[in-house]
Amino acid sequence: MFTLLCTHIEKRVHLTDEEFEISGKFFTPKKLRKKQFLLQEGEVCRHIGFVNSGCLRQYTVDNKGAEHIVQFAIEDWWVSDLNSYLTGLPSNYYIDALQDSKVLLLEKSARDKLLDACPKMERFFRLLLEANYIATHSRVTESLSTSAEERYLKFIKTYPKLFEQVPQNHIASYLGITPQSLSRIRKELSQK
Amino acid sequence: MFTLLCTHIEKRVHLTDEEFEISGKFFTPKKLRKKQFLLQEGEVCRHIGFVNSGCLRQYTVDNKGAEHIVQFAIEDWWVSDLNSYLTGLPSNYYIDALQDSKVLLLEKSARDKLLDACPKMERFFRLLLEANYIATHSRVTESLSTSAEERYLKFIKTYPKLFEQVPQNHIASYLGITPQSLSRIRKELSQK
Repeated sequence: MFTLLCTHIEKRVHLTDEEFEISGKFFTPKKLRKKQFLLQEGEVCRHIGFVNSGCLRQYTVDNKGAEHIVQFAIEDWWVSDLNSYLTGLPSNYYIDALQDSKVLLLEKSARDKLLDACPKMERFFRLLLEANYIATHSRVTESLSTSAEERYLKFIKTYPKLFEQVPQNHIASYLGITPQSLSRIRKELSQK
Repeated sequence: MFTLLCTHIEKRVHLTDEEFEISGKFFTPKKLRKKQFLLQEGEVCRHIGFVNSGCLRQYTVDNKGAEHIVQFAIEDWWVSDLNSYLTGLPSNYYIDALQDSKVLLLEKSARDKLLDACPKMERFFRLLLEANYIATHSRVTESLSTSAEERYLKFIKTYPKLFEQVPQNHIASYLGITPQSLSRIRKELSQK
């Protein structure tokens, strides 16, 4: 259950076996069926989730009912509306499972207790936040300054597995283009 | 020199006198004259800076030469292009002093050494990143979803001192409106 999470943490900070055991106790395992929600718009995001298996997506729905995917979360990634989690304000996002998935959830109060019980995890969460900051910055910059083709190529490189698992219309939504444009880009690239 | 910084840190984590003394050694004091640059576009942002006195601004310059202020930093605030600082990539921003200012600079390698020498500061920087995350999120959301008048009222509340110190055209740039629009909003509010 915790093997993947331990390996994930170990890449960033070195914990003793005892510290791993202590830290693990603050997480709650949860199974999600395909299409099941982890978060819905208007709710406060109470957890950050570590994805043990499967795939989730975070998205908004605009006034016309169209979905805009801001993030996919696959195995070994975290998923959350961090702003809602940190501020306690209602979320503007939905998070649901694209496949049957298993996540390890960490509530905010549990995280605070974990940090008191195992101060080395302060470094882990600081590094996680830094990585998140860089990824968010890069996502915003790309959406403003790169072509759809460049974003598609970056997507394949970032999520090589996901590319095979997720419907094309979800990938188009993440890239901010229509499924028709994605089709055209794929065709053009295959001819190059 | 370090009194304000110590008070600032003490609000978030409790350090012993010895730990404060150790931590302070990693910062480098720097005086900036009005209009002097701390960072220019294309350079890597090597420091985060704690503002001891004065006021700085972070801005971009678009293709037409217009400045867009993304952030002011007054006494007791931090200033940096965090993305460039964390990734080592060239910055898209300028940071300069709007008044004669004094800052305490912390280089990235010095911060890593500080965190090894005083692990309690991991919590401080984690909390600082969280606050930055929330502020950035709020700034983006506001720029997309609130009226110029609402943004102006929020600005006065956030930066009550700054409002008296900074030229109106800088405030208009921060709010993403023309100086003429700002004038109109101020007039309308004074008549309410």
